[in-house]
Amino acid sequence: MVEGQLVCSNCSSNVPFHHEDGICSCGGAFLVVYDLERIQRVWSKEEIARRSATMWRYKELLPIQRENDIVSLGEGWTPVLRFPEWEKKLSLGRLWVKREEQNPTGSFKARGFSVAVSLLKSRGIRRAAVPSNGNAASALAAYAARAGMEAFVFVPMDCPGMIVEEALRYGAETCRVDGLIHDAGKLIEDGKQKEGWFNVGTAKEPGRVEGKKTMGLELAEQLGWKVPHVIVYPTGGGSGLIGIWKALCELKELGMIEGDLPRFVSVQETGCTPVVDAMHSGAERLVPYGESTTASPIGVRVPNPPAGDLILSILRETGGTAVAVTREEIRLAQRAMGLQGISASPEGAATWAGLIRLRESGDVQAGERVLLFNTAHALKYLPWPAPASVPVARNYQEFAVNRNKG
Amino acid sequence: MVEGQLVCSNCSSNVPFHHEDGICSCGGAFLVVYDLERIQRVWSKEEIARRSATMWRYKELLPIQRENDIVSLGEGWTPVLRFPEWEKKLSLGRLWVKREEQNPTGSFKARGFSVAVSLLKSRGIRRAAVPSNGNAASALAAYAARAGMEAFVFVPMDCPGMIVEEALRYGAETCRVDGLIHDAGKLIEDGKQKEGWFNVGTAKEPGRVEGKKTMGLELAEQLGWKVPHVIVYPTGGGSGLIGIWKALCELKELGMIEGDLPRFVSVQETGCTPVVDAMHSGAERLVPYGESTTASPIGVRVPNPPAGDLILSILRETGGTAVAVTREEIRLAQRAMGLQGISASPEGAATWAGLIRLRESGDVQAGERVLLFNTAHALKYLPWPAPASVPVARNYQEFAVNRNKG
Repeated sequence: MVEGQLVCSNCSSNVPFHHEDGICSCGGAFLVVYDLERIQRVWSKEEIARRSATMWRYKELLPIQRENDIVSLGEGWTPVLRFPEWEKKLSLGRLWVKREEQNPTGSFKARGFSVAVSLLKSRGIRRAAVPSNGNAASALAAYAARAGMEAFVFVPMDCPGMIVEEALRYGAETCRVDGLIHDAGKLIEDGKQKEGWFNVGTAKEPGRVEGKKTMGLELAEQLGWKVPHVIVYPTGGGSGLIGIWKALCELKELGMIEGDLPRFVSVQETGCTPVVDAMHSGAERLVPYGESTTASPIGVRVPNPPAGDLILSILRETGGTAVAVTREEIRLAQRAMGLQGISASPEGAATWAGLIRLRESGDVQAGERVLLFNTAHALKYLPWPAPASVPVARNYQEFAVNRNKG
Repeated sequence: MVEGQLVCSNCSSNVPFHHEDGICSCGGAFLVVYDLERIQRVWSKEEIARRSATMWRYKELLPIQRENDIVSLGEGWTPVLRFPEWEKKLSLGRLWVKREEQNPTGSFKARGFSVAVSLLKSRGIRRAAVPSNGNAASALAAYAARAGMEAFVFVPMDCPGMIVEEALRYGAETCRVDGLIHDAGKLIEDGKQKEGWFNVGTAKEPGRVEGKKTMGLELAEQLGWKVPHVIVYPTGGGSGLIGIWKALCELKELGMIEGDLPRFVSVQETGCTPVVDAMHSGAERLVPYGESTTASPIGVRVPNPPAGDLILSILRETGGTAVAVTREEIRLAQRAMGLQGISASPEGAATWAGLIRLRESGDVQAGERVLLFNTAHALKYLPWPAPASVPVARNYQEFAVNRNKG
């Protein structure tokens, strides 16, 4: 593992690795820099192939320096499946789905929190908090439990109840917030000094993007170090997309892959589409969405992704696009994936629904190779009620008052 | 892959490989025989280590001859985690849990159905049926969907509703049976000729045991080809235990592992303990349990496991035992595992609860190396109601009548 540096994705300024903030004063996202020349001297495809089947096989490209600090529950190296029947239906060269639901906690969020919590451990930090629409909550809860840390998770009222249930079972202090995810984020920011919380929310620290990056490293290796033409990814906070793109940039610089990067496509749900709108209007910068009107939250409901400008530049620079799909299209895609044996989350099914739109619009052409991501298990989203014992708060003050009562 | 033969686990008679029955006329279980001398010539630890991270890395020890017949959703090669804190608490040399919930469909049942459905495919069979207390239902449904086959699943009324939900999403024709799992089995036997169903129930065909065998192959390789002192496994129908034992016997004959086999321990739940009772009374043969009195079914509620005598002989020959745990002990173990970051099914938690009993009784001694299995995700067992649209039947006649109405 290497000593990291950070670079701003917008103004390109370099700063020494620090752990407390993910966004530069100019508004760009801080990304970890590696000494790729040094890694190139020790890496080879043959050497990597012999390593253990977890995301930590790429340890030199992850920001943890001591093996002992790694907090692992067996994440990564998830299967990539082909769907020959649908390749024919959609006239594609290849159609793959990477099954992220086979991670610990049943979602891709495990990757980000494995790295983020390992970073906390390396720093001796004992209390972590996260605002989440769902899977991030249970992932932080599980990894904090594994590390013997305290976790505090804050979710909107309409977060899937099963995910609340899961966070409780991992022992996290769990609170429902009467508001959207940014209200949950504000609660944490308001309370963090007093409570000693480290905020591991999106773009608040560099670990989660690095963890999600392993999806990109894996897909390249699993496809024989040959990348697909198109990657379709559900975009909420955007750190999954940013991570995958960063992975492929690093692999390219390392000489592990060649040629053009895939075209990246963001999928969002009608009712909260800041990325789609900016792509279609040609706006330079992303405009916060204002009031979201989606029926019930899924992970892509993020009205104002913190690293929005970087998302736009990835989509544009790779020749990709962004596409909105309806809840009904997501439902139909979930059904189609179920009938192929895949338990797809709404976000995962949104990539399938997005692909159908992209074939209709011609944005994906016949014969192309396309990779989708199923980000989590379908069952976690059944309308299970959150346990009545979970407190509700509008802000940090209410949270603190409730807590002292309890 | 090799041409198989079958041997009876009781009378040792050899018969050519056939697919329609799992039990010999003497009552023993038919097990697949491999040409181990031939495999020994092609296998090496180094060669296996280079293979893909699925259970199909052991293809020569699985009964599928043509790669094209393999029906895979990315099963196997699940993580094995250590629990250092609990090693100290229980004074163990090592405590591992193999995370079977990270398989497709969130349970170890994926392994058995990957092989069983592959065998059906190789024979051109198009309709499969299974009786199940839960996870087998959703696993058959998913693998049949992947293979483009029709699946029919029959579950007791009190089968976890979420698993019924899952089977429906994979497109299986699903029916709740007013009775226990053997009533569901009888329904299939009564209807199979008319409906053209192949019954893939426990001990009805050789594929499921072979698939589950890969848990044993993997644990040996993942622990560096050195087996633990004790394996604790939740025992219902018993084919998981039989499979793991068969795997280690084969590896021993292949020279891949050395020394004594692990002591096998069956865990059952108070209220339905045919294996525990036979072990404690010293009975030669297993006595069917009669009326089970468990609160709600978990996968270990099988009053009369079809290959019960083989289970007893495995426990006795390896110097193992069987242990009963209460629902309350299971609940506490689930809590303990949750606080370690593991989403444990009741059956998986039963192995943890069983281990605590075994340490108290001295059946597991200080310093020993113990491996547990978490067989499925906790969340699948939340008391979610089965969808009202699922028909209910007491027997095949009622099933057929309901169906013609529908």
